[in-house]
Amino acid sequence: MTLSGHVGSNPTPGVVFQEFRINCGDKMPMVADEKPTDVKYLFEPKSVAVVGASDDENKFGYFLMKNLINFGYDGKIFPVNKKRETVLGLKCYPTVDSIPDEVEAAITLIPAKFIPQVMKDCAQKGVKGIIVCTSGFRETGEEGIKLEKEIIDIAEKAGIRIVGPNTTGILNAINGFTSTFVILPQPRKGSVSFIAQSGMFASVMLEYMLTTQPFGFSKLAGLGNKVDVDDADILEYLNQDNNTKVIAVYMEGVSDGRKFYQVAKKIAAKKPIVILKSASSKSGGEASLTHTGSLMVKDEIFDALCRSTGLIRVEDLEELIDLTKAFALCPLPKGKKIGIIAYTGGGCVMSSDACERYGLELAKFSNSTMSKLTEHAPSFAIVRNPIDAELIRQGVGDMNASLELSLEAVANDENVDAISVVLVGLSSTKTIWDIDIKRIFAKIREEHPEKPIVATTLAGRELIEEHKKKFDELGIPFFPSLLRNIRALAALVKYSKIKFGKI
Amino acid sequence: MTLSGHVGSNPTPGVVFQEFRINCGDKMPMVADEKPTDVKYLFEPKSVAVVGASDDENKFGYFLMKNLINFGYDGKIFPVNKKRETVLGLKCYPTVDSIPDEVEAAITLIPAKFIPQVMKDCAQKGVKGIIVCTSGFRETGEEGIKLEKEIIDIAEKAGIRIVGPNTTGILNAINGFTSTFVILPQPRKGSVSFIAQSGMFASVMLEYMLTTQPFGFSKLAGLGNKVDVDDADILEYLNQDNNTKVIAVYMEGVSDGRKFYQVAKKIAAKKPIVILKSASSKSGGEASLTHTGSLMVKDEIFDALCRSTGLIRVEDLEELIDLTKAFALCPLPKGKKIGIIAYTGGGCVMSSDACERYGLELAKFSNSTMSKLTEHAPSFAIVRNPIDAELIRQGVGDMNASLELSLEAVANDENVDAISVVLVGLSSTKTIWDIDIKRIFAKIREEHPEKPIVATTLAGRELIEEHKKKFDELGIPFFPSLLRNIRALAALVKYSKIKFGKI
Repeated sequence: MTLSGHVGSNPTPGVVFQEFRINCGDKMPMVADEKPTDVKYLFEPKSVAVVGASDDENKFGYFLMKNLINFGYDGKIFPVNKKRETVLGLKCYPTVDSIPDEVEAAITLIPAKFIPQVMKDCAQKGVKGIIVCTSGFRETGEEGIKLEKEIIDIAEKAGIRIVGPNTTGILNAINGFTSTFVILPQPRKGSVSFIAQSGMFASVMLEYMLTTQPFGFSKLAGLGNKVDVDDADILEYLNQDNNTKVIAVYMEGVSDGRKFYQVAKKIAAKKPIVILKSASSKSGGEASLTHTGSLMVKDEIFDALCRSTGLIRVEDLEELIDLTKAFALCPLPKGKKIGIIAYTGGGCVMSSDACERYGLELAKFSNSTMSKLTEHAPSFAIVRNPIDAELIRQGVGDMNASLELSLEAVANDENVDAISVVLVGLSSTKTIWDIDIKRIFAKIREEHPEKPIVATTLAGRELIEEHKKKFDELGIPFFPSLLRNIRALAALVKYSKIKFGKI
Repeated sequence: MTLSGHVGSNPTPGVVFQEFRINCGDKMPMVADEKPTDVKYLFEPKSVAVVGASDDENKFGYFLMKNLINFGYDGKIFPVNKKRETVLGLKCYPTVDSIPDEVEAAITLIPAKFIPQVMKDCAQKGVKGIIVCTSGFRETGEEGIKLEKEIIDIAEKAGIRIVGPNTTGILNAINGFTSTFVILPQPRKGSVSFIAQSGMFASVMLEYMLTTQPFGFSKLAGLGNKVDVDDADILEYLNQDNNTKVIAVYMEGVSDGRKFYQVAKKIAAKKPIVILKSASSKSGGEASLTHTGSLMVKDEIFDALCRSTGLIRVEDLEELIDLTKAFALCPLPKGKKIGIIAYTGGGCVMSSDACERYGLELAKFSNSTMSKLTEHAPSFAIVRNPIDAELIRQGVGDMNASLELSLEAVANDENVDAISVVLVGLSSTKTIWDIDIKRIFAKIREEHPEKPIVATTLAGRELIEEHKKKFDELGIPFFPSLLRNIRALAALVKYSKIKFGKI
């Protein structure tokens, strides 16, 4: 799905929205290291020309201007529209080359047939990068293919980088720059960058993550037809971007396998790249050809590529977001020995199973940990890892004391590399299980910033939401199940091994 | 975790809550078919004696009485307590055998040392079944083991069935009968029955499901030490229970493999049994020994048991609940050919992948379906399964019309056995994607009650919750991801094959 289209016109359903069809081939002959920094003009331009800017509240050119203003874009905005004197109070220019100031980037929202002239104006002006949101190129047949070649030629000669066509393009949450022409909520600043095959999918995912996840964003890219800038180019840029700590990718196909391999291998050694590569099945590949024209990559080959480059491959969107959250919020563990605290025997059992399933080990507690726990547990209790913390609670007679005691013992234990906590609650016995989450977990994280901690709660909806809110505010990954706790820790361990090669 | 304990005393943390330790061996020599109907007295007694009933709002005996009254238990309640004349306005008796009326079931909440006498009174009175919530038996050592043997002997001679000891026991949502002594919300009546290894885990899971899932319950059982009634006995009973359509089981170990195999094989052919068997790993097995004393079953053996009996084995709690929901709300499909409608190209691609992964097929649409869809799609669109319904929306110019058209085409197609729908939304363009979910889906289900439909939405949190509410009210399974849509359909297909052997 894309919401791009013949922009500049009224965004009425069925009229302006058009799916792009083809997304491969005809790439400009560039390799990863040729112009590594060019892409930064598409994320961090000091100034931008908005071609198709509008005061008309029904037009994409209005939405885009509003986004730039609402997000607090820190560069200069030059509306370009032959029919207007001003747009949203800003002086408007008839063409890009009539702007008296320097223009680093341009965004186009006007119909495809006008784009070649805009490209020429941009070349004339010395624009460094252009985001062609406009659709109506190769995806519409012969005429569009010709038009697309024309703009590629002009850009190539002028050394202008292109994102698109046919995409919502770029969003830089740090400086407020964007080419997104659907109204989005203000993105939280953070360390996650996200690359998606289609711009609209990126927008929907962004809204989902903004409203359900605790992490913030650095850069987003939806690449559209990819006539020039592709995933590898964006990865190169994100590698250099100090705000980006973790990179999440949704991708249907790889157009230039060699380039992608080289770039992925280089960058995965520095920053975690979590990747959902769909179109892994025959029918998925066929659907992808219709969707974005991506060429299918054999799944075994892509798997091998991930293993040899160090990409963290995931199986679905839930896992993509789970692992992105873990990488965004957690330190990398020193090893694969997990300490587990669960307020239910069943949670202990299932957590143990999950560790084995994901190739993790249950830490063997030190003597000091064992004696500390044994001292407080009831006499009949067998203390071990996972800790059945309900027994400790019975021993010390208080929920918070039991949690603090267990957490500190485990966090202080040098045999423990990472911690998973499983809380439990019943609304009728809330007083028993009323937990001072913020104080206890803030303290433990302050004392042990080097150990990843993840949490989950088994309870009714209300209590789960209450706990989620608290852990989100603390910046401790909270997952809907203990299996997903362990899966997230396993990804941290896996990447720790990729990066440091030791575990 | 268990919240059972030395009940009758004050439920203060650290004093009365006690974990049971051992849960295997010493079974009464009964086989599945010997007394199949006896267990019904533990779920549907016409009258119950509550030994340890209390007016004291801090005692389990009060909570249990409140539950019986709040749930509207349709039988006679006889409080038993030597120290009281009445409890909650009901006449109270000093002993079970002093009750002048017939007593079919008894529940004990008094300390373990008094239980043998209670058993004798029950035998004297002709009680059919007794739920021993009390803990303090084998899990506490020598004395407890002796005590446990004593009550087993009395029960065996008198032909009384025992649930427990050391459990919250039974909940019958249909007639309001329960032995649960923690306050629970009123359970919705429905077709799901749930068996759990520990009673407290069952209570927490019940609260989770009641507050997050649209289905209702028939029977719940948490079995505790299982000195008599075990999973197989409960399965036998649920097989005969007309209110039970689907059975969900959380189990750590099987004590009598042969009996379980026979019963499972018989019942799985009639009703779907979704089972989460934990303690599948070495360390999980060790944790389970500490938790419920379950003997470990080799995972490959249990897998083989599931395959040959027709149990639907799942990997975690999320899947247990997902599949239970699908079985509770959906008809069984005639085959494995899936029709997919997705308002995002990415959703089409990922749904196709998921079908292949779970062994399903994308239905090949009939000519009539193809021409109906092609007629309304834009000229450039390639119509296929999965349907990129955003294109249909562009073609017909209206969200609801596109959904109705796509759904009807797919549901009418005899090549389609089941349907997965992927909706999409952005809060800023809500008007475009505003969907009349209730009307459209109610209609399609009325017209095609034979085809399972599942749905998911990719959007911000608010819209997802709005959609979930609507689908929940319709009784159409709504999942957090398209992968889980397909996984649920795959389970329906799998069971359809188990039951009818045709697909």
